[in-house]
Amino acid sequence: MVNTDWVIPLDYLNRLDGNTNSCGDLVRIGIVTVSDRASKGEYLDEGGPAILEFFKAGINSPAEVYYSCIPDEMTEIKSELTRFADDLGCSVIVTTGGTGPADRDVTPDATVAVCERILDGFGEQMRAISLQYVPTAILSRQVGGTRGKCLIFNLPGRPKAIRETIDEIWRAVPYCVDLIGGPYIDMNDDVCDAFRPKDARRR
Amino acid sequence: MVNTDWVIPLDYLNRLDGNTNSCGDLVRIGIVTVSDRASKGEYLDEGGPAILEFFKAGINSPAEVYYSCIPDEMTEIKSELTRFADDLGCSVIVTTGGTGPADRDVTPDATVAVCERILDGFGEQMRAISLQYVPTAILSRQVGGTRGKCLIFNLPGRPKAIRETIDEIWRAVPYCVDLIGGPYIDMNDDVCDAFRPKDARRR
Amino acid sequence: MVNTDWVIPLDYLNRLDGNTNSCGDLVRIGIVTVSDRASKGEYLDEGGPAILEFFKAGINSPAEVYYSCIPDEMTEIKSELTRFADDLGCSVIVTTGGTGPADRDVTPDATVAVCERILDGFGEQMRAISLQYVPTAILSRQVGGTRGKCLIFNLPGRPKAIRETIDEIWRAVPYCVDLIGGPYIDMNDDVCDAFRPKDARRR
Repeated sequence: MVNTDWVIPLDYLNRLDGNTNSCGDLVRIGIVTVSDRASKGEYLDEGGPAILEFFKAGINSPAEVYYSCIPDEMTEIKSELTRFADDLGCSVIVTTGGTGPADRDVTPDATVAVCERILDGFGEQMRAISLQYVPTAILSRQVGGTRGKCLIFNLPGRPKAIRETIDEIWRAVPYCVDLIGGPYIDMNDDVCDAFRPKDARRR
Repeated sequence: MVNTDWVIPLDYLNRLDGNTNSCGDLVRIGIVTVSDRASKGEYLDEGGPAILEFFKAGINSPAEVYYSCIPDEMTEIKSELTRFADDLGCSVIVTTGGTGPADRDVTPDATVAVCERILDGFGEQMRAISLQYVPTAILSRQVGGTRGKCLIFNLPGRPKAIRETIDEIWRAVPYCVDLIGGPYIDMNDDVCDAFRPKDARRR
Repeated sequence: MVNTDWVIPLDYLNRLDGNTNSCGDLVRIGIVTVSDRASKGEYLDEGGPAILEFFKAGINSPAEVYYSCIPDEMTEIKSELTRFADDLGCSVIVTTGGTGPADRDVTPDATVAVCERILDGFGEQMRAISLQYVPTAILSRQVGGTRGKCLIFNLPGRPKAIRETIDEIWRAVPYCVDLIGGPYIDMNDDVCDAFRPKDARRR
């Protein structure tokens, strides 16, 4: 069931060297997979690796990508998001899993709880993107928001849906991180054509 | 003004037999029409019957459809939604009427008050659908959410707008009810092509 | 940098005579530019004039347009919105500026604080419109809502983005003002094809 060809095990800290000629700064990013079963080892997490693949292909700047796989528990998700943002200094944290309407799905609730501000556009556009593929996209409670200088948002659980979403949404992320006072994230335009107003561009 | 050809009076309990070969379970559904004037008998409720027509044409499973027509009063709407969900065991409640910006429009407020979780995608997509027809769709405050094992959402007031909305939105409802622990709702694909992931399908 | 050809200085009170044969009522409208730098005179406000240009071209009824340019301070924005709505009797207030994710951006927060009801459709559609031009539109926290008989909503900061948004969004505004008990705003159909249901039209 799991396509182990591309499911690479993730380390706690994954270093991406970036391109030597990048105009970007070092950025710390968190990936938090939320899944009762993956966190118990009942199956391999496919979401986390799909996200890391995007970062490997798309980010030109050097990056440190922290990873964690935890159960669908409100308290654990909140404390992991807080730790990644406040202690590890992540400028962006993306989660995968736990965004549906089922009882055990609490990722958006934990995200709202740790964010100081909600950016409604993230949830809206992620649902709008997924709605092009499945009508049940409206059931997702995905949100995005900021905690200090860290942007946090919830991706879907399935690798295919993750890439449909992150490849598009991330176009707004580097400029968002600029605006909240974080490092300049330089992207590979071929993978992700990120937008900044002219006066905010380094190249 | 009222087209009495298709406005059928609704009973308190409307039984739909369903198709004998349906793979679905018995489902209880509530229709709550919210209207000061219809509840006083000043005109015939057209919204409730339009919704029941959709259920008659679209649902293959046996169903019990409860109906009620009440004034635009916060307290009454809250208590009716609570009664339908908790006492009658409805897995889905749809309302019609009272979602605009006027003072007397309080249906979304009552819905938010009785729901434990809001599913923003419902409001977003219902407005996006109606926006294809009228620019004033952005004035609607329609919401959707869950109360225990019951999904509640607000439809527009006009029969035409109801059908434009429910025919599309309902494609996500059966799987939502699965996820919150309710009965399997089997739909007539010709009327409503509901989506479930493969591993959640009975047929 | 500022195109002074079209940047006209705004008075505190700008009177629009309207067309003599208009079927509309006198309406009071507020424009609140929120910008630390423009309020200090470090540059000319371009947003306010862009909005007034739209009103001049689009509104057939007589109108009094109040204007104010204030810094990005929660307290000042709240008190200005309150004063425009409650003391000056504005039926609509539009703001420009301060809707992003940066620390100093607090316009939506002030708007939410003074509104009794939020109309989610405003924020959703404004972001959807801007998303046709820039992917960073999802970073905007623009909202709309009502305070008594006054509709308040947040426009983007840049004149181009303002006109892309207001020209489309305003199609729903006159009917919204009807519904919340305000004056009948008569629009010039060539500039803004506002929608009202048939039974709400004067012409």
